[in-house]
Amino acid sequence: MSNPSAKFKACIFDVFGTVVDWRNSVARVSQHHLADKGVDLDWIAFADFWRGEYVPAMAKIRSGSRGYVALDQLHYENLESTLEEFGLQDLLNEQEKWHLNSAWEQLDPWPDVVAGLTALKQHAIIAPCSNGSIALMTRLAKYGGLPWDCILGADIAQNYKPEPEVYLACCRALRLPVDQVVMVAAHNNDLDAARETGLQTAFIARPTEHGAGQTIDLEPSSDWDYVITDFSQLA
Amino acid sequence: MSNPSAKFKACIFDVFGTVVDWRNSVARVSQHHLADKGVDLDWIAFADFWRGEYVPAMAKIRSGSRGYVALDQLHYENLESTLEEFGLQDLLNEQEKWHLNSAWEQLDPWPDVVAGLTALKQHAIIAPCSNGSIALMTRLAKYGGLPWDCILGADIAQNYKPEPEVYLACCRALRLPVDQVVMVAAHNNDLDAARETGLQTAFIARPTEHGAGQTIDLEPSSDWDYVITDFSQLA
Repeated sequence: MSNPSAKFKACIFDVFGTVVDWRNSVARVSQHHLADKGVDLDWIAFADFWRGEYVPAMAKIRSGSRGYVALDQLHYENLESTLEEFGLQDLLNEQEKWHLNSAWEQLDPWPDVVAGLTALKQHAIIAPCSNGSIALMTRLAKYGGLPWDCILGADIAQNYKPEPEVYLACCRALRLPVDQVVMVAAHNNDLDAARETGLQTAFIARPTEHGAGQTIDLEPSSDWDYVITDFSQLA
Repeated sequence: MSNPSAKFKACIFDVFGTVVDWRNSVARVSQHHLADKGVDLDWIAFADFWRGEYVPAMAKIRSGSRGYVALDQLHYENLESTLEEFGLQDLLNEQEKWHLNSAWEQLDPWPDVVAGLTALKQHAIIAPCSNGSIALMTRLAKYGGLPWDCILGADIAQNYKPEPEVYLACCRALRLPVDQVVMVAAHNNDLDAARETGLQTAFIARPTEHGAGQTIDLEPSSDWDYVITDFSQLA
């Protein structure tokens, strides 16, 4: 990675797992909201179940059987399933559920993220290319101090990754050719789709995204353009 | 404006004229590019003519007689008209014209802007609601150090102000009711449209946007929710 600033004009980032630790954060915020109601449960299991509904919820939209709705709405519907799974379907009113849903706006960045993005921002445009909405990504950036230049991703494309249109829409929005943009992710399948679409690719392992027993995405599965261990290496 | 942070969740901003001094900046960058070619002319007149093509170019899109294209493209077409007006139609090749077109990404903020936005960002979401594209606004923010939380505006709406859809699309993107969002502008007609759409309104006079002889928008034309003289008053 000698003189990388000449090799790309923008880096776009997966966010859940790559930039932020959604699992411990959602567990913490859920506990904070529900312990007040006398609830005690395995908060990590709660976070995992809630997140587990994410891919099937998006699948309907990616397949076209449901029109685009923002991830905030899908998170809300998935929260309802999660509360039901844990026998808590009658615990919260609608307003309280939306309040708990904002857990996804309070996710802690991994320790290298803010310094790494701040350094990279001097050399390139940096933006999330997440399935999260503009609203969600904006509030998450304020919460975690993420110094994005702009918010790209699903809302811009009105579709969800790994549909090629999402990566293409981000490059179009920046008026950059795809080969001047790097997709950064901790998930090999995200990079597969980005490479297929013509973008450069950077992999960073986040080996505890799914906890100590994580078995996936511990290593790069392909010869990605960059393999990094810390966001500061992009700068 | 006592305790304004309780009264709105986001402020969205007109940019050309309200946040940045496009006239002197475009004149300066144009001179920088064209003086090398031996051209000498009235650079302020050049900037004024180029900007003067802006409203008619957008009118075709607002009326629906032309599909949405980003302002970067309109600026390029308007540059061609401007070069022709000044007898310079054969001076630049396409690449040089696109390079000169990036003048619109190098506009100086008015002196109160960066400090005012930085303070306001602690209390509210701040974003441009400009007719400039995401690409243009992103590069302009990097140039001028504008600390936006996200980039909203014409690209999000695929239409141009003062069409109501632009203001509505910005509020929807933030998942905020229109009455929790303030439109900030130095142009009364922009605020007319924002108020009509349900947003709060803030006027700031920029009495030299069009030079010392400016006759329009020197005063608020209505009882806008806020009338400020410095961006720091929004915080």
